[in-house]
Amino acid sequence: MKETRVSIIGAGNVGKGILSIIQGMKEQGQMSEAFRLVSVSDSRGTVYDTQGMNPAKVLNAKEHGDIFRSGYQRMNTEDVLGLKADIIVDVSPATRDGKAGRDLYLESFSLGKHVVTANKAPLSFFWKEIMNASRSAGKDIRYESTVAGGVPLFNLRDYCLLPSAVIKFRGIVSSTVNYVLRKMKTGLDFNQALEEAGKLGIVEANFRDDTDGIDSARKTVILANSLFGTNMTLNEIRYQGVNENTRFDNVQGEQRIIASLDVTDGKVSATSNLETLDPGDPLITLKSQSLGYIMKTGFSGEIFVAGLRDGPIETASGVVNDILLLAGFRRN
Amino acid sequence: MKETRVSIIGAGNVGKGILSIIQGMKEQGQMSEAFRLVSVSDSRGTVYDTQGMNPAKVLNAKEHGDIFRSGYQRMNTEDVLGLKADIIVDVSPATRDGKAGRDLYLESFSLGKHVVTANKAPLSFFWKEIMNASRSAGKDIRYESTVAGGVPLFNLRDYCLLPSAVIKFRGIVSSTVNYVLRKMKTGLDFNQALEEAGKLGIVEANFRDDTDGIDSARKTVILANSLFGTNMTLNEIRYQGVNENTRFDNVQGEQRIIASLDVTDGKVSATSNLETLDPGDPLITLKSQSLGYIMKTGFSGEIFVAGLRDGPIETASGVVNDILLLAGFRRN
Repeated sequence: MKETRVSIIGAGNVGKGILSIIQGMKEQGQMSEAFRLVSVSDSRGTVYDTQGMNPAKVLNAKEHGDIFRSGYQRMNTEDVLGLKADIIVDVSPATRDGKAGRDLYLESFSLGKHVVTANKAPLSFFWKEIMNASRSAGKDIRYESTVAGGVPLFNLRDYCLLPSAVIKFRGIVSSTVNYVLRKMKTGLDFNQALEEAGKLGIVEANFRDDTDGIDSARKTVILANSLFGTNMTLNEIRYQGVNENTRFDNVQGEQRIIASLDVTDGKVSATSNLETLDPGDPLITLKSQSLGYIMKTGFSGEIFVAGLRDGPIETASGVVNDILLLAGFRRN
Repeated sequence: MKETRVSIIGAGNVGKGILSIIQGMKEQGQMSEAFRLVSVSDSRGTVYDTQGMNPAKVLNAKEHGDIFRSGYQRMNTEDVLGLKADIIVDVSPATRDGKAGRDLYLESFSLGKHVVTANKAPLSFFWKEIMNASRSAGKDIRYESTVAGGVPLFNLRDYCLLPSAVIKFRGIVSSTVNYVLRKMKTGLDFNQALEEAGKLGIVEANFRDDTDGIDSARKTVILANSLFGTNMTLNEIRYQGVNENTRFDNVQGEQRIIASLDVTDGKVSATSNLETLDPGDPLITLKSQSLGYIMKTGFSGEIFVAGLRDGPIETASGVVNDILLLAGFRRN
């Protein structure tokens, strides 16, 4: 592994997961001195050390409510790109328009930094602009964890299915909306179902983003653009969700919000709709906290991949994987 | 992609699949001129062209019974390593003792060539010797398709689950034995079941290798050594298969030959036995021509991966993926 300096923006559940994985890898002797965490930002500000920080110290401070308790120097988050770093990691929450993320990535590329992101908003609004900037700067962007949490998807396509074009994709890529919908099928109303989801810690403050199906739709946009080379935005996707008015009385079979993409005669179709699953559909076997997909490929057949229980640590693992790929890390 | 010269040894179903995938990638503009196929060998000899061969021409000749019809120059297969090539691809049939393969790989490394193999025998008898030789020569060996056909496994571990150690593995990694066993469960006797499998083209001349469970056991050895760093050989694995005396009368539930590996207190356990599956086990959902596994990891949770229909072209796709990884190929 070559020397790699990393700035992390976002210290929510995924950000904390990243810190704990890096710490775990260090403790197991898997992460060399060549890896340096140079800054961590949350909504209140940034702590940094250009010599490298101890992830456990930042994590511990954050768990106690405040990254500033870590004792590292503070700076304004808008100055983070001024630090010498090779990779900017964006695990901040999705914004409505994705503009802040886009600006961050474009500036990062122009300063010679790679980007790793789990933030769906910028890529679902400004795909082409971001990819063009990445290409012209010769700096990479990896985004494994934007779709389907910690389940390998884009990295699997890029490293395990190299000979094949992707022909078709169907997946359950968003947990919360599907969890709520499954609970509603058992007879609960929307608010009761949401409450059940809340007990699992999978309901965000702006829960309509998930339940209206916007989260799954954003992921569908990223899938279309990445798998099929389109330049779609969220405005072009048909999507559905669930709400107080959704009724499942007398609805037979199993329903899910399915990201469904394919190409016919060169035309890409991409939807994130409520579908009734066929009894033989592998997606029907996924349990309520599981994400997964079927990818049909040119030469590698149809591959079914699922994470049996997806959560923030699995998502963080996907982010760390992206960082390690960019750092040229190899398993020993 | 840097210039890469490839020799393929073996022109059975998987070898032919490799030729057809390379041809397909060329036709789709996915494979640059930098990729050169310099030789193809089958059991009768070798055809070569140091300037690069047309895969379609060799494939066509082989389909008509004879690679020599391709019109390329002939040579003895023992002289193939004398050709200038970067990667030797071994898709020849497994031998009983794996010695020929080991000798081929060791000589390849010493001549500065990487190895890609789908041949299980050498790695299940001489793992450490081969890996040590690879390391000391600074040349790679990749072996994705030795286990579970075209289903991403070692590449998934190496490129998609980088932060995680593998903790546990359970999989259906061998088609034929499981197909025969499933047919026997429906009431057929061993020979009738074998005949059904024969109709699908999945019965080899030395079919006992599969039905006795040796194929699955070899794969289990490779899994143990690769996932857990052991140096096991086939002699150390407990394994089961099916034969004329196997009876399933009054046996309840679903049985499969399962490669099962885990570590307890630093001790690796690896078996390939007949197991009765729990109704909630994701492996129970796999159809009869499907291979798949559950891999439990340190940070990335439990990942379930399956190929919905595994065959020679899917296996060949795994081999081509290995070649492309070594050639530094990137998706554009």
